[in-house]
Amino acid sequence: MKKIPVLLMGCGGVGRHLLQHIVSCRSLHADMGVHLRVVGVCDSKSLVASMDVLKEELNDELLSEVCHIKSTGSPLSNLGASGGCQVFNGSEAKRETEEIAKRLGKSTGLAVLDISASMETVEILVKAVDLGCCVVLANKKPLTSSLEHYDKLALHPRFIRHESTVGAGLPVIASLSRIISSGDPVHRIVGSLSGTLGYVMSELEDGKPLSQVVRAAKTLGYTEPDPRDDLSGMDVARKGLILARLLGKRIVMDSIKIESLYPEEMGPGVISVDDFLHNGIVKLDQSIEERVKRASSNGCVLRYVCVIEGSSVQVGIREVSKDSPLGRLKGSDNIVEIYSRCYKEQPLVIQGAGAGNDTTAAGVLADIIDMQDLFP
Amino acid sequence: MKKIPVLLMGCGGVGRHLLQHIVSCRSLHADMGVHLRVVGVCDSKSLVASMDVLKEELNDELLSEVCHIKSTGSPLSNLGASGGCQVFNGSEAKRETEEIAKRLGKSTGLAVLDISASMETVEILVKAVDLGCCVVLANKKPLTSSLEHYDKLALHPRFIRHESTVGAGLPVIASLSRIISSGDPVHRIVGSLSGTLGYVMSELEDGKPLSQVVRAAKTLGYTEPDPRDDLSGMDVARKGLILARLLGKRIVMDSIKIESLYPEEMGPGVISVDDFLHNGIVKLDQSIEERVKRASSNGCVLRYVCVIEGSSVQVGIREVSKDSPLGRLKGSDNIVEIYSRCYKEQPLVIQGAGAGNDTTAAGVLADIIDMQDLFP
Repeated sequence: MKKIPVLLMGCGGVGRHLLQHIVSCRSLHADMGVHLRVVGVCDSKSLVASMDVLKEELNDELLSEVCHIKSTGSPLSNLGASGGCQVFNGSEAKRETEEIAKRLGKSTGLAVLDISASMETVEILVKAVDLGCCVVLANKKPLTSSLEHYDKLALHPRFIRHESTVGAGLPVIASLSRIISSGDPVHRIVGSLSGTLGYVMSELEDGKPLSQVVRAAKTLGYTEPDPRDDLSGMDVARKGLILARLLGKRIVMDSIKIESLYPEEMGPGVISVDDFLHNGIVKLDQSIEERVKRASSNGCVLRYVCVIEGSSVQVGIREVSKDSPLGRLKGSDNIVEIYSRCYKEQPLVIQGAGAGNDTTAAGVLADIIDMQDLFP
Repeated sequence: MKKIPVLLMGCGGVGRHLLQHIVSCRSLHADMGVHLRVVGVCDSKSLVASMDVLKEELNDELLSEVCHIKSTGSPLSNLGASGGCQVFNGSEAKRETEEIAKRLGKSTGLAVLDISASMETVEILVKAVDLGCCVVLANKKPLTSSLEHYDKLALHPRFIRHESTVGAGLPVIASLSRIISSGDPVHRIVGSLSGTLGYVMSELEDGKPLSQVVRAAKTLGYTEPDPRDDLSGMDVARKGLILARLLGKRIVMDSIKIESLYPEEMGPGVISVDDFLHNGIVKLDQSIEERVKRASSNGCVLRYVCVIEGSSVQVGIREVSKDSPLGRLKGSDNIVEIYSRCYKEQPLVIQGAGAGNDTTAAGVLADIIDMQDLFP
């Protein structure tokens, strides 16, 4: 049985689903000759680790307790009373995380998972890579930081996976990596990479005003608490940057042309969410409606897409043919079209649910299993 | 630099493209820290091997010569006059192939590639697996033979890859493997897995008679020399069986319900290709036309699909909604819809060119690179 030690950073919705998947896959993975040995779990403030990370793991009962505690909104430090684990807080948690990476990285190997949404994890990740650990990310931020950080993280490309940073569990990165390694040059990628904006754009087709569609999306739970986090296009730009960097392009966030769906004067620093939803966004209805009509008269619909071509990444609204896979997209599905030498006239298309804790966690788990040959 | 010794069986169109890709990817793969060391190439009668497979490889000049000789329709044995290689013929070729697997399997590792269309390779492949080699197939036949053979080939699942057996280089197997390893149960797979039948079915929509469409497809080079090899559905059934076995289903070819597009009395054993194309197939036009019309009145189109569900694999014509990804498929693209817990209402869809020497070879190459961590 191959043992893969795992350290999980981040136990929000995705992290909890991941722990549940790990536990429920025990017998499946045993059949595959693999055992995931969770030696530590962090939230933003604490680390819960097994008593001896070299020999012991957090057992399934403890993992369930972690899930339970976090699902009630309590901090991990509440686990202090349980037996069979150590709890570290604050700077001690940080130091001990690094210590675990040091002790396991070179000896048994360690998969460090970043399932957080934090800007702060990049340093520990870089250290983990340096210490011989594997790294799996669902967190986009470390990969969209400076090129210096990126190069350090991707120093050993086999030791880093991040399927769930783009399109959740959709096999976008895995497929693109295959295309790259087979020497098939990628000319162009076009994607609708935000479930929220995919939903908004397809609802606009029916003539509904933007303000109404966004409010409905918020009610349905499709948007971030502040919908401007989606409407700004920043999240899509991050995904585009990740794909572009995978293609070897030396691009930084600042060089990406991003079309925000709201003007600066309606930004989060200027007006409140409520003000935006009740007074701001209605002012945008008319111009969007005109664009929808113009597109329609061209046999097109509007889509909020990311286009990667040459050395540029562009993010914004595009008219696309009603009859293209992108134009036919409905609801919150993601879609990616990849054009290469092998997929020249007709692209390789990957489509499906591109959000959700379950599928995001599944993508992370598949990444870990995919790296199994790196462990002794 | 990680060295991956490679032995290629089959040098038809795909094999030649693969050798060319290997050579043209030299610097890309060097950047990835990988070098593909081709130690032997076989056609059905001969083996060309380096003088000492442990230390030497067939150099790029020799590989180009192999491609050249095979592209002129000559046998590999013509290479006898070239320096820097040994040529073995007949039973000697077979014995020496096994000898190479023996010498490299356990020591440096060996990737044995079956790019042939032969029924005969399964024995040497089973031996190769047994000797510790990795196996990469574009050949469907060894994987659709008896369950006994299948179990032996798939004994170490990490040591076998076969992306190009289904949908050429389309990342169908890679994606499905990820879904399986993440514990996401697959309920149903529906695919249009034949470029030829995809083309035929979509052309029928416009009201053209079957006979005319098939003759046109043959002229365009879309069909096998005997189009009945496509129309029988056998090739689609093999692909369906491969996917079903990947899902763990214990199925054999004989248990698959296959709808052939021609009746037995028009089979290859009964009438000639010419007779079939000029006198036979026209007799099928009317009934197909009626089915197309009936489907259309239901808002549907006909597709030749493979459906995997529960313990059954079914292959044949189905009515599918015009508005579904399958129904909108045009030309010779392949499409696969995967339904699972994560992709429940809307499937995961993978679509693109599912045939062609270039993309098939690219899929094989990606498989080899994907296995690199198994080599010392």
